Amino acid sequence: RIDSARLWDSLMEMAKIGPGVAGGNNRQTLTDEDAEGRALFQSWCEAAGMSMGVDKMGTMFATRAGEDPDALPVYIGSHLDTQPTGGKYDGVLGVLAALEVVRTLNDLNIKTKHPIVVTNWANEEGARFAPAMLASGVFAGEISLDHAYSRKDLEGKTYGAELERIGWKGEEEVGARKMHAYYEYHIEQGPILEAAEKSIGVVTHCQGLWWLEFTLTGKDAHTGSTPMDMRVNAGLAMSRIFEMVQDVAMKNQPGAVGGVGQVTFTPNSRNVLPGKVVFTVDIRTPDQAKLDAMRAEIEARAAEICAEIGVGCAIDPVGHFDPVTFAPELVTNVRNAAERLGYSHMDIISGAGHDACWAAKVAPTTMIMCPCVDGLSHNEAEEISPEWAAAGCDVLCHAVLETAEI
Amino acid sequence: RIDSARLWDSLMEMAKIGPGVAGGNNRQTLTDEDAEGRALFQSWCEAAGMSMGVDKMGTMFATRAGEDPDALPVYIGSHLDTQPTGGKYDGVLGVLAALEVVRTLNDLNIKTKHPIVVTNWANEEGARFAPAMLASGVFAGEISLDHAYSRKDLEGKTYGAELERIGWKGEEEVGARKMHAYYEYHIEQGPILEAAEKSIGVVTHCQGLWWLEFTLTGKDAHTGSTPMDMRVNAGLAMSRIFEMVQDVAMKNQPGAVGGVGQVTFTPNSRNVLPGKVVFTVDIRTPDQAKLDAMRAEIEARAAEICAEIGVGCAIDPVGHFDPVTFAPELVTNVRNAAERLGYSHMDIISGAGHDACWAAKVAPTTMIMCPCVDGLSHNEAEEISPEWAAAGCDVLCHAVLETAEI
Ligand SMILES: NC(=O)NCCC(=O)O
Ligand SMILES: NC(=O)NCCC(=O)O
Repeated sequence: RIDSARLWDSLMEMAKIGPGVAGGNNRQTLTDEDAEGRALFQSWCEAAGMSMGVDKMGTMFATRAGEDPDALPVYIGSHLDTQPTGGKYDGVLGVLAALEVVRTLNDLNIKTKHPIVVTNWANEEGARFAPAMLASGVFAGEISLDHAYSRKDLEGKTYGAELERIGWKGEEEVGARKMHAYYEYHIEQGPILEAAEKSIGVVTHCQGLWWLEFTLTGKDAHTGSTPMDMRVNAGLAMSRIFEMVQDVAMKNQPGAVGGVGQVTFTPNSRNVLPGKVVFTVDIRTPDQAKLDAMRAEIEARAAEICAEIGVGCAIDPVGHFDPVTFAPELVTNVRNAAERLGYSHMDIISGAGHDACWAAKVAPTTMIMCPCVDGLSHNEAEEISPEWAAAGCDVLCHAVLETAEI
Repeated sequence: RIDSARLWDSLMEMAKIGPGVAGGNNRQTLTDEDAEGRALFQSWCEAAGMSMGVDKMGTMFATRAGEDPDALPVYIGSHLDTQPTGGKYDGVLGVLAALEVVRTLNDLNIKTKHPIVVTNWANEEGARFAPAMLASGVFAGEISLDHAYSRKDLEGKTYGAELERIGWKGEEEVGARKMHAYYEYHIEQGPILEAAEKSIGVVTHCQGLWWLEFTLTGKDAHTGSTPMDMRVNAGLAMSRIFEMVQDVAMKNQPGAVGGVGQVTFTPNSRNVLPGKVVFTVDIRTPDQAKLDAMRAEIEARAAEICAEIGVGCAIDPVGHFDPVTFAPELVTNVRNAAERLGYSHMDIISGAGHDACWAAKVAPTTMIMCPCVDGLSHNEAEEISPEWAAAGCDVLCHAVLETAEI
């Protein structure tokens, strides 16, 4: 069993960096707070006897040596970056639980054939730079390094420039590392495990995603003196697209979601009808055919809505991954470990995207989940119990030992 | 006749300060660019022999002395501040045409019984600080000075602090001045005069307005892992309110408008359903009963929409004025002047709000309008011709002389 108190203390210590406004965290990718969190994590890894490598995307890899010089490492980890109003566990739990696995093996003097690499993937959230899971996407060869470097935040700052600025651009070629396997432990971020009163989610699949960035072009015009029939109102077109996305998601129940989190009006003045409206539609489902059909329906209906109002409509797919099926042998390891340790468990599909979705392209991969209170995540009020945190970490430790071979 | 070339040159000179991104201007209230525009205007006023007074709201009053020491001044003017993506004429034409009237009287050595005061009202646009026509509202006793000082821009900076910062907080008590009359010349900002091929709009009324600032409270939640039936989606509620406002405006045709220009999502991240959405509904009509009925219907239906989704809904009426009827004797002066000068004219209702709407509370007031191309305003492409500009200025000059008495 891992050291539950040590794991919790590390979580609380990390949460002090980049505090939010309501008990959570704001430690967004490539901010000063991100740099501070990275430095703390590095100091902990070094104290645990690991050596740190950093790649050109800023992903951190801390290695605990194995016994067999030819054996590929088993990777475990997640991400330390957060949403602007994020929780203390989303991502962080997976990284610090991976560290706790190494600390436990050190305590018990357990050696493994395969090295173990604790990983902090860069820009998992995609809050500041779209898409999410950017560094793991480059690692898996699905996104080019140049494209990643050119991604901009809302202020126009690029990923590449900000990575240099905070001093965490490494030397390693991204994706040069080969993995024996990848395990990721994460809070569920949804309500299923809590409702079913299960401690462990054995993650078999992850739903696929499209992020469709819409740019609607209307005509800046005075809200008072422009008659209704002369308006080219991009805001009205946007509202009809929101309602249509809701309708498409509801028609595809169960097992589909759709919504919008980010909107920018230009010029954003109370008495000017917006000349430009930019927003990102987020749709997901575990069913590949449904995912593509939803995207096609949304794009077709949006074009009709905009044509009717006379608004220009451009759609840029800024984020995408197909539904993922995780490696059956690793899934079995997780299920067996939960069983052996006596934790209640159930199979589950991940609703959120994770770095594991990209890792699955290049190595046998799976995930472990623990419940979170009210299924709430991407909210500063995100909460888990120390017992939940520890149970998943125990399962992670046992599953990893199975793969890394004692 | 006024000097058409001189008026146009001054317009083009002022337009160099705070250039926009597409040929217009960004000279928003209490920015460095606003300060620069004010200084240029002051230098022109002094060169024309006028003395400058500034009140505690930052409104500028340049006085050309009259012959009768007991006669109250005739005020003429408008505003030099612009929208973030504003045109070169909205407001500016009215101020510089007023200056041109004085320059013309100087050239012709015409003396008037009443002094003439060229006025640059502060924060007419309301783009940075709501409501619009803030300084004239305080002048008319409709808004308190403390309330005005406390108004915040999107970055949280207050009107009071920014006025101090740019160095244009004057000594005069706001509203201490008494007016014999107030004339304001402005571009129409709508399509009516151009369509009717009239040079002069004789403004008889101005429609009333409500700005309703909505704050919708939903629940920050993950866009991927939060099932549709667990969402408290403030963005969806917002989109239904947009559509409902459109419906209310359309039901009240002809003679009513409704729309939204400013929206802020929080936390504004692609994969977070917004916990908070703030936006301002702008509704207008010249009919008092209709205006109040529209507001009541919008508030009632918004409450229903939000209740259905479970979203909290607070409404703050951040801007308001009742429909205005301008002073019949001044309206007659304007109509007679246009007639005498041989300019085609028609009676018109102002679709936009103007400082004249508040001045009308404390003095006989009216307005003169000229056409603008395609009725377009609050857009950098806003355009007028030098001939249009000059015709209205001629009418202004004649009407003012009627009231200021030679
Ligand atoms: N786990 C998580 O919240 N990842 C961010 C990417 C996503 O939106 O699913
Ligand atoms: N004239 C003008 O655009 N004024 C701004 C106030 C309004 O929105 O009507």
